[in-house]
Amino acid sequence: MPDQSQVIGIAAGVCTGVSLLPQLIKIIKEKKADDISYFMLFILLTGLAGWVWYGILKEDYPIIITNSFSFLVNIAIIFFTIRYHKK
Amino acid sequence: MPDQSQVIGIAAGVCTGVSLLPQLIKIIKEKKADDISYFMLFILLTGLAGWVWYGILKEDYPIIITNSFSFLVNIAIIFFTIRYHKK
Repeated sequence: MPDQSQVIGIAAGVCTGVSLLPQLIKIIKEKKADDISYFMLFILLTGLAGWVWYGILKEDYPIIITNSFSFLVNIAIIFFTIRYHKK
Repeated sequence: MPDQSQVIGIAAGVCTGVSLLPQLIKIIKEKKADDISYFMLFILLTGLAGWVWYGILKEDYPIIITNSFSFLVNIAIIFFTIRYHKK
């Protein structure tokens, strides 16, 4: 049985991870990403990698799992932002 | 002395928190936010509040401090996105 904090951690992580998805869908659908900040995407990527590392050190599975997911979504956002950014 | 995991947690939290700032600055400077997803902003807000709650339950200060900061930045982004969104 997961304890209360694990449930909240996973719910929080699902929200922060899922919050990246509409941005990804919007970029792919509209084929433009001019209001997206590159700098933000790369700092975010660094931060997400840091959280995964933190989760590993603390053996905190909600942190590891949800931030790994966010990391992958952010990689996809960076890929499509580069692809659709106005030259 | 903070231990290694606290340093990494704070560094990761500073990155994920700071990653929201360029978006905020960009919206204020360009006075437009049409490529920003509302749905994303509200899910992210819920997620950040959840992480603060998780941090309180686990008495994990890097998580509490950095997610509280991100929460406030996200509130500001929502405010300006609503203000500058094309009618």
